[in-house]
Amino acid sequence: MTKPVLHIGNKRLSSWSLRPWLALRKAGIEFTENLIPLDQPDTRETLKALSPAGTVPVLQAGALTLWDSLAICEWAAEQAPSLWPSDPSLRAHARAVTASMHSGFGGLRRDLSMDLQRSVGGTDVSVQAWQDIETILAMWAACPRGGDGFLFGQWSIADAFYTPVATRFRTYAIDLPDAAQAYVDLLLSDTDYRAWETAGLAETFDAPFH
Amino acid sequence: MTKPVLHIGNKRLSSWSLRPWLALRKAGIEFTENLIPLDQPDTRETLKALSPAGTVPVLQAGALTLWDSLAICEWAAEQAPSLWPSDPSLRAHARAVTASMHSGFGGLRRDLSMDLQRSVGGTDVSVQAWQDIETILAMWAACPRGGDGFLFGQWSIADAFYTPVATRFRTYAIDLPDAAQAYVDLLLSDTDYRAWETAGLAETFDAPFH
Repeated sequence: MTKPVLHIGNKRLSSWSLRPWLALRKAGIEFTENLIPLDQPDTRETLKALSPAGTVPVLQAGALTLWDSLAICEWAAEQAPSLWPSDPSLRAHARAVTASMHSGFGGLRRDLSMDLQRSVGGTDVSVQAWQDIETILAMWAACPRGGDGFLFGQWSIADAFYTPVATRFRTYAIDLPDAAQAYVDLLLSDTDYRAWETAGLAETFDAPFH
Repeated sequence: MTKPVLHIGNKRLSSWSLRPWLALRKAGIEFTENLIPLDQPDTRETLKALSPAGTVPVLQAGALTLWDSLAICEWAAEQAPSLWPSDPSLRAHARAVTASMHSGFGGLRRDLSMDLQRSVGGTDVSVQAWQDIETILAMWAACPRGGDGFLFGQWSIADAFYTPVATRFRTYAIDLPDAAQAYVDLLLSDTDYRAWETAGLAETFDAPFH
């Protein structure tokens, strides 16, 4: 079978794309990457041809098309079970932490969008975004950590989902408790993340509107 | 072990609660139900004491607390694998359809909120909500159906996630293609859903603001 193709958005901007990209790398699943620049005149048409959702990321693996970042990660975890904790209770906990990011934190998304090329500095943060930040910090604090320092010890899909959050906390200079800051530093020093970041910093697409 | 407790919101209103409630019923997992009326003076405090998210639903099973509806469904599926299709590609597809509902369709949520006591009739629907409806219909049309008529033949978590959508399409009198209408009718005639609906129609909590 030919290698799966992962269609992604701009690495500078696409927090949704970053998560399954990290999971596939950590799973050791070889894939071809296809970057679709966002917010260009033909972006919508290109994406609608790929899936009913019309969004990035999209994974194409043989006849299978997956247009949802969490579903792509679960697909990867069925081939590489170490992407989730092996203990059933910890795995359930990790899925709660992960799926919370998938469905929620609208204030954080809106006020602190991921932009790897933005200069570090504060921004106006709404009450809703502050509540999101407090909830995220409470969730992180209730995770077991230990081991390698990731939320559930070893790297898991939960860490993939909070890597874009780590970039936001850095970019917008959010003041964090020490344990949370250490976790952010850990995510941002990850080799795979750094490879993504290097590419995102070098991108020069025309004036994306996001 | 004592039975798990599923904390839910008003059955009239809480689309998020309905999904795992259905999944637990279909899984044959016995649970105690605890209804926490939404939008009352002490609701936020009660929910914050249960989990960092401060939202319903919340499942408590022994030492495990799960505050996310999709994570609760995945937890149930580890005990009752028939909640997902047994074929790996169909299972991945079902997770994409399901997780899309978990993360998206903000226009639909806002303009067509679930309210089982609202009289059937049209409402103002934004362009964004119409786009959401079109995407949902395209996703449904691309599912295999067959078998019992559910999205993936037999009932799955994907059907749990679209049961609140079925109530919205009925409540707001959305004109649907025949195959989609037949699917809506199937979901709304389900015995477990009907038990939820009967309770939701009988609720008389004071003036919820939602």
